[in-house]
Amino acid sequence: MSAELPPRLAEGYRGFRHTRFRRERDHYARLAEAGQQPDTLMIACVDSRVAPEVVFDADPGEMIVVRNVANLVPPYQPDANYHGTSAAIEFAVRQLKVRHIVVCGHASCGGINAFRQNHLGDVDIRDGDFVARWMEIAAPATRLALTCDGVDPLQDQTAMERAAIRQSLANLRTFPWLAAREAAGDLTLHGLWFDVADGTLCVLDEASGNFAALAD
Amino acid sequence: MSAELPPRLAEGYRGFRHTRFRRERDHYARLAEAGQQPDTLMIACVDSRVAPEVVFDADPGEMIVVRNVANLVPPYQPDANYHGTSAAIEFAVRQLKVRHIVVCGHASCGGINAFRQNHLGDVDIRDGDFVARWMEIAAPATRLALTCDGVDPLQDQTAMERAAIRQSLANLRTFPWLAAREAAGDLTLHGLWFDVADGTLCVLDEASGNFAALAD
Amino acid sequence: MSAELPPRLAEGYRGFRHTRFRRERDHYARLAEAGQQPDTLMIACVDSRVAPEVVFDADPGEMIVVRNVANLVPPYQPDANYHGTSAAIEFAVRQLKVRHIVVCGHASCGGINAFRQNHLGDVDIRDGDFVARWMEIAAPATRLALTCDGVDPLQDQTAMERAAIRQSLANLRTFPWLAAREAAGDLTLHGLWFDVADGTLCVLDEASGNFAALAD
Amino acid sequence: MSAELPPRLAEGYRGFRHTRFRRERDHYARLAEAGQQPDTLMIACVDSRVAPEVVFDADPGEMIVVRNVANLVPPYQPDANYHGTSAAIEFAVRQLKVRHIVVCGHASCGGINAFRQNHLGDVDIRDGDFVARWMEIAAPATRLALTCDGVDPLQDQTAMERAAIRQSLANLRTFPWLAAREAAGDLTLHGLWFDVADGTLCVLDEASGNFAALAD
Repeated sequence: MSAELPPRLAEGYRGFRHTRFRRERDHYARLAEAGQQPDTLMIACVDSRVAPEVVFDADPGEMIVVRNVANLVPPYQPDANYHGTSAAIEFAVRQLKVRHIVVCGHASCGGINAFRQNHLGDVDIRDGDFVARWMEIAAPATRLALTCDGVDPLQDQTAMERAAIRQSLANLRTFPWLAAREAAGDLTLHGLWFDVADGTLCVLDEASGNFAALAD
Repeated sequence: MSAELPPRLAEGYRGFRHTRFRRERDHYARLAEAGQQPDTLMIACVDSRVAPEVVFDADPGEMIVVRNVANLVPPYQPDANYHGTSAAIEFAVRQLKVRHIVVCGHASCGGINAFRQNHLGDVDIRDGDFVARWMEIAAPATRLALTCDGVDPLQDQTAMERAAIRQSLANLRTFPWLAAREAAGDLTLHGLWFDVADGTLCVLDEASGNFAALAD
Repeated sequence: MSAELPPRLAEGYRGFRHTRFRRERDHYARLAEAGQQPDTLMIACVDSRVAPEVVFDADPGEMIVVRNVANLVPPYQPDANYHGTSAAIEFAVRQLKVRHIVVCGHASCGGINAFRQNHLGDVDIRDGDFVARWMEIAAPATRLALTCDGVDPLQDQTAMERAAIRQSLANLRTFPWLAAREAAGDLTLHGLWFDVADGTLCVLDEASGNFAALAD
Repeated sequence: MSAELPPRLAEGYRGFRHTRFRRERDHYARLAEAGQQPDTLMIACVDSRVAPEVVFDADPGEMIVVRNVANLVPPYQPDANYHGTSAAIEFAVRQLKVRHIVVCGHASCGGINAFRQNHLGDVDIRDGDFVARWMEIAAPATRLALTCDGVDPLQDQTAMERAAIRQSLANLRTFPWLAAREAAGDLTLHGLWFDVADGTLCVLDEASGNFAALAD
């Protein structure tokens, strides 16, 4: 027995067909024929409120997008295990030769929140099978960011979200063929943080480590 | 020294701010305040031409989206390694309690293409560090799909893309807490395949294993 | 001294520039170079809730749109006075050679409402300079539609809105060069009525005089 | 016998239903219930390439829009004739009490073009029934703008389009109840000119009579 497609998905798809796809039909056909040549690899969170193609009003073909919990990049570790995010990075950098990699975090990140509460002893995310282990990617940077011992949870949360972005950028540079392209000036790395509540986008200045809002 | 945000990203973000965010500002603020409660987990490809929020015209908050190369789900394997996709599934199913999981594949999939050419001896994706190993998730099903020995590459490619979707659905059911929710009628699994060239969306009928185009 | 552009207009224009215009820049440039060749003349109301390009998701260049109070067409009357709507019809039919003319009315029409209340003696729109006289274009048909003497205002209102659409179609046929094109099969007339509250679009069947909702 | 709705209109309407209307359903329902309260009256051209709701990314309910050939406003002339544009102005100013009136002209205006060629003797628009007479509204200003005797047609065309906007603003001020509201500071008039080819929007500075591009 087969399941019905959820009505909202069917409705949304029909809307896409009648509006945007109708308008960009030729563009889609060309992209299918010629293959994709995205300029940017976007590493974003699975969060339902932060769709990169929406926030950056992207056209089809413009950005290749890997999404995982808390937009994390694990360190380079070529072994016999499955490395989904690393495979995406390899595909984007070595095959598609993107010129930009953006790590795009956001406020109210559920993964960071669970990790933060675990630090404080409020919850034990070790109960689960995968999230706790996955979040440890961010640990080296986020532990240092927890400066106020839970006195101001929002400040802690934001500090950890931003520290995790810096950690992911550092981990990206452990991929030798990626670092080589950056050193050659063929690739640029960027850190962004999006505030769901008011739509502000903050850009990381890697020299200072600070994030500053992009002017409208 | 810090990098400039690519102009297209800054321009796209400003467009979003002035149009969609302006119009949905209250909705974003509510989502930030109340937290996300998505109904659907979408497992999609990193491909730049197939953004789920575009193809399903999704609103912010509607679907949590994990994206990896070839929209694969590895089998349940709780160990000390990093499992990004499994962490997203755990977060969506156990914490957010989504009611639908959709595996959404597509035509012209680069991951499947590399895997298919590797089968035929045309390329050796084992040269890379991660993609080859990652694509082996699909191997049990896709090997069987390679029926015509490269005589009709497009037919092989489509058959492998669809077999990989069936494999990912099978792997999803190896997660015990996920299978339990499906058995209890609290969760439904779906397989979809999107044709970039003409915008057709095909829905998997799990009883027959066939994909049929959704009517407009 | 000069006035500032209202902030919403400046913001909305910037949004258009960064999103839709960016995406359709080439289409606009071609339309500027080649001139417009719309297929349809849309005769619609000035109402702020019923923008034809929105309701029909029209592309630039697709429909030429005349908008006046209550989407009325006066009878053919070539004399020394200014006839704005008739000039638009002449331009669309004789110069641009549109193949369709659509009279698109809607629920909650302010012009029809004033006219209906005037009939009932509730208000005297004759106090104004232009609206009362303008609405008399609809009088031959709308007087007959007022069947229930105000017992059911919404029924009266809808009946008058639809009668006015039929009147405008009749008046369109008093333009000799328009009637000649219709007789030759080069032009088709249509009547539509849009319900603002629930988004239903009703299509006039001229044989029966009835309006029926368009299926989704 | 009844005519089929043109397929593009049916398709476009279905797209609207599934996307924007779905998203703004509550807003439409509220607007139907509460009535419209637009802040702005937009006086625009019938041209298929210049839809005000598109160029200003307007929401439903935001602007009441009258559209005629060449976005002209005739002088105040309350008599027994039908005055469609004047009726719209009366409705917007006296009943809806808009706070802004915008006359929005554009490049490549067909009405101005016909009028200009008529001036030069290239065509005789007096052949028609209504357009020639309607365009005479602009004559006082546009005759003066024709300074270079056809040596540079594009310069002439632009000068006449802009002169016509200034003429319409002058004519608006012949409506006594409109001028009274402007004098009381309750209403502001604006002149805009949109360049279809490159999407530039120019704003009239009434003090100098010049148009300057709005910054992005």
